[in-house]
Amino acid sequence: MFAKRIENLVESPVREILKVIDRPGMISFAGGLPATECFPALDLSCVDSEHLQYGPSEGESELREQVAASLIERGLQTTPERVLILSGSQQGIDLVAKLFVDRGTNVAVEAPTYLAALQVFDLFGAEYIPYTADQPKIGNSRLTYTIPTFQNPTGHCYSEEQRRALALACDRSGSVLFEDDPYRDLVYGECDRTPVCSYVRDTEWIYQSSFSKAYAPGLRLGYLTCSKKLFPHLVRLKQAADLHSCRVSQRLILQLLQLNDDRNQTLTTFYRRRRDSFDLSLTSAFSGIADWQQPVGGLFYWLTLRPEFAIDTRELLKQAIEAGVAFMPGESFYPRGVKALPSLRLNFSHASPEEAAHGLRTLAGIIRTACESRV
Amino acid sequence: MFAKRIENLVESPVREILKVIDRPGMISFAGGLPATECFPALDLSCVDSEHLQYGPSEGESELREQVAASLIERGLQTTPERVLILSGSQQGIDLVAKLFVDRGTNVAVEAPTYLAALQVFDLFGAEYIPYTADQPKIGNSRLTYTIPTFQNPTGHCYSEEQRRALALACDRSGSVLFEDDPYRDLVYGECDRTPVCSYVRDTEWIYQSSFSKAYAPGLRLGYLTCSKKLFPHLVRLKQAADLHSCRVSQRLILQLLQLNDDRNQTLTTFYRRRRDSFDLSLTSAFSGIADWQQPVGGLFYWLTLRPEFAIDTRELLKQAIEAGVAFMPGESFYPRGVKALPSLRLNFSHASPEEAAHGLRTLAGIIRTACESRV
Repeated sequence: MFAKRIENLVESPVREILKVIDRPGMISFAGGLPATECFPALDLSCVDSEHLQYGPSEGESELREQVAASLIERGLQTTPERVLILSGSQQGIDLVAKLFVDRGTNVAVEAPTYLAALQVFDLFGAEYIPYTADQPKIGNSRLTYTIPTFQNPTGHCYSEEQRRALALACDRSGSVLFEDDPYRDLVYGECDRTPVCSYVRDTEWIYQSSFSKAYAPGLRLGYLTCSKKLFPHLVRLKQAADLHSCRVSQRLILQLLQLNDDRNQTLTTFYRRRRDSFDLSLTSAFSGIADWQQPVGGLFYWLTLRPEFAIDTRELLKQAIEAGVAFMPGESFYPRGVKALPSLRLNFSHASPEEAAHGLRTLAGIIRTACESRV
Repeated sequence: MFAKRIENLVESPVREILKVIDRPGMISFAGGLPATECFPALDLSCVDSEHLQYGPSEGESELREQVAASLIERGLQTTPERVLILSGSQQGIDLVAKLFVDRGTNVAVEAPTYLAALQVFDLFGAEYIPYTADQPKIGNSRLTYTIPTFQNPTGHCYSEEQRRALALACDRSGSVLFEDDPYRDLVYGECDRTPVCSYVRDTEWIYQSSFSKAYAPGLRLGYLTCSKKLFPHLVRLKQAADLHSCRVSQRLILQLLQLNDDRNQTLTTFYRRRRDSFDLSLTSAFSGIADWQQPVGGLFYWLTLRPEFAIDTRELLKQAIEAGVAFMPGESFYPRGVKALPSLRLNFSHASPEEAAHGLRTLAGIIRTACESRV
């Protein structure tokens, strides 16, 4: 009765978790939720009645201009005419998958990587070629998906050398480079954030980012640009998907971008503090249990459990939720067929420092108990 | 390089037309544009900072409750838990096509029908079984797509008998019924608007509608409900498509729905007047050239050209646009492989009565000249 692709459509663990994190008293390290305290004030003075009419599939022209200027500043060669406004960057993944992924198409992905990207590639029948930042062996993939800046889930930021190596691998094999860059504005220290797509010479490419992390996810807006040949196809796919994105959201975001305030600085100061206090609580609770690196940006810590505490964290989740703590099992971020390391993704931006300290102690306690009882 | 489905992705004639209708002085009968005069005033007092956070894929719970109540009033058996908020009803078509349409899947469609639905079904590789309201021969289709109330493009409103016959045909063959009902609020006379899905006994079904016509397309919101078995799949597909719809739009629409004002009456009075004056201008300009029926609702007149004026209206469009008039060639609404009648879809809601009169005279003149020169 259903299309074949539906065999690959499984309930996402994220959804299951998002259902319970609203429970009163729940401490959540699970979602990629920005801190509610940082959301901007909105003002409808920028919305006229004409903006309530149907609009262009590509997006509002003023917003496309503003986005293009920012993309060029990042080192990408593009124009306003080659910017497509998206209903969140999740939509970009859907459009790019429609453009490239048939049943059996090889897609190179970092392992682990963003699980809702895997969900979309799975739906269209992708086979995976896993690669790492250090060894970008992307094989005969048609598409290479990457989150080089504050990767989800690992938080890793590619060095310039790693960025150049990935671009070169795509150029050599002709694999289309699909760069997902939603976290770039949340940067807390020195690092290279040059788009990998800016290093590409020959191969086709798509670069996308989002307004969800630095502004507000509830507005559901993102954007992409790409090499010339791909743009008309992506616009048609966008039109078929939802005609165009919400125009009120587009006007509101444009207004916020034009404020030229110190929003970015305020944001990064806030998140850097959250990260630093999280780091202390993490060291206090998880030393000896897991290993991690302090992320230079983004929203996540990635913990790999030491051999003596190696346990499938998907099994732990139910227990943790009963104890009032939610997290993302690291195993969920691995593509089908790749051996997953026992690991946890912990969001540090949403819980208050006090909640975080308490939640981390609880979580470490559960892991200790589970592994002691195992011996 | 591209996925196979991209062979079926062609530039939509609607897009080409929407690009030119912004030209100063252009009289447009082309789009399904609601009248800008009728758009509601917006007020952000209903949006708290919590609504700027990520939200549930299904939609805001209060809005789902409000929508469910309205769906039950229309005769559908549903609950708030089985309502999915969409980023416009175009998105519903994308989700349903993903759920049912493989390459070669038979989809029964009215001929003519909504062209952006055909665009999506084409993308996923559908084959078509064309049917009419009078003869719902849907064959061995897996999916039956219908717009029974003020059909796009014909404006036809199914009688109760036709509604029951279509539901019965789906029940007998097991074809999944997909009912698209975006125009139902724009009703100007007596007619049956009972959802065909409410007559279904056995087969699976999806019913969707939109806030674009009665409120504002720029907010990009629609909704669907469906039989129990389908709902979890459609929620997962929604999540993979864009996580969830714009929460600010959802709050704004909820606020407007709760006003309980006489909006519907104001709207229908406005549109009925537009239709009636359009009717007079149409009779004056097109008598003897084309045949049509006055629509009881919706936004369109459907003109079929008489044999002596039978000409492919796609050829006329360029000339019409040069003369400052845009319309939709009826031929674009026919599925692949079906012989199209020479016809025009004319939107009567957007142009002012004076513009409409002038535009219709111009259009009729172009057709007369083209057909005279042909002899």
